[in-house]
Amino acid sequence: MYILLVYDIISDEEGARVSRNVFKICKKYLTNIQKSVFEGNLKKSELIKLEYELKNFIRKDKDSIIIFESRSENWVDKKFIGKKDDKTSNIF
Amino acid sequence: MYILLVYDIISDEEGARVSRNVFKICKKYLTNIQKSVFEGNLKKSELIKLEYELKNFIRKDKDSIIIFESRSENWVDKKFIGKKDDKTSNIF
Repeated sequence: MYILLVYDIISDEEGARVSRNVFKICKKYLTNIQKSVFEGNLKKSELIKLEYELKNFIRKDKDSIIIFESRSENWVDKKFIGKKDDKTSNIF
Repeated sequence: MYILLVYDIISDEEGARVSRNVFKICKKYLTNIQKSVFEGNLKKSELIKLEYELKNFIRKDKDSIIIFESRSENWVDKKFIGKKDDKTSNIF
């Protein structure tokens, strides 16, 4: 399963710590392709673990994570405008 | 065609102006679902116009836009963790 994850952490007093932890968790499972954007291929069980870990950190009323799932990366074309983050080249 | 667009504009002196313009352009074509994340359904011709307009504003060496295309929104499942932006409900 191809996963794309984007997050927006409110930058208040606690926000920096939450953001660091969310970044670290995402990096365990996915590739960072833009500031708060990650992508990669995960099994269902891995995705469930990722979501569980993230839910322990974000503040439900302030922060937002969106996870896009597609059956295969072949179903999603990706195009860069401007600066490209080279780490992604191994996905496409 | 289902489109998901994410951008990261470097916040230097000129960045605020670039970011405002990128946001305004994206809003003409797509729905804002998170700080710098937009989605929607576009025809190929509309996507070409959107890309053309964006290229006039971003700084190729600093800023980054990634456009994900999928033949149909049915090929992409979307899940929110934390705060949800209601504007998206008309897409799914």
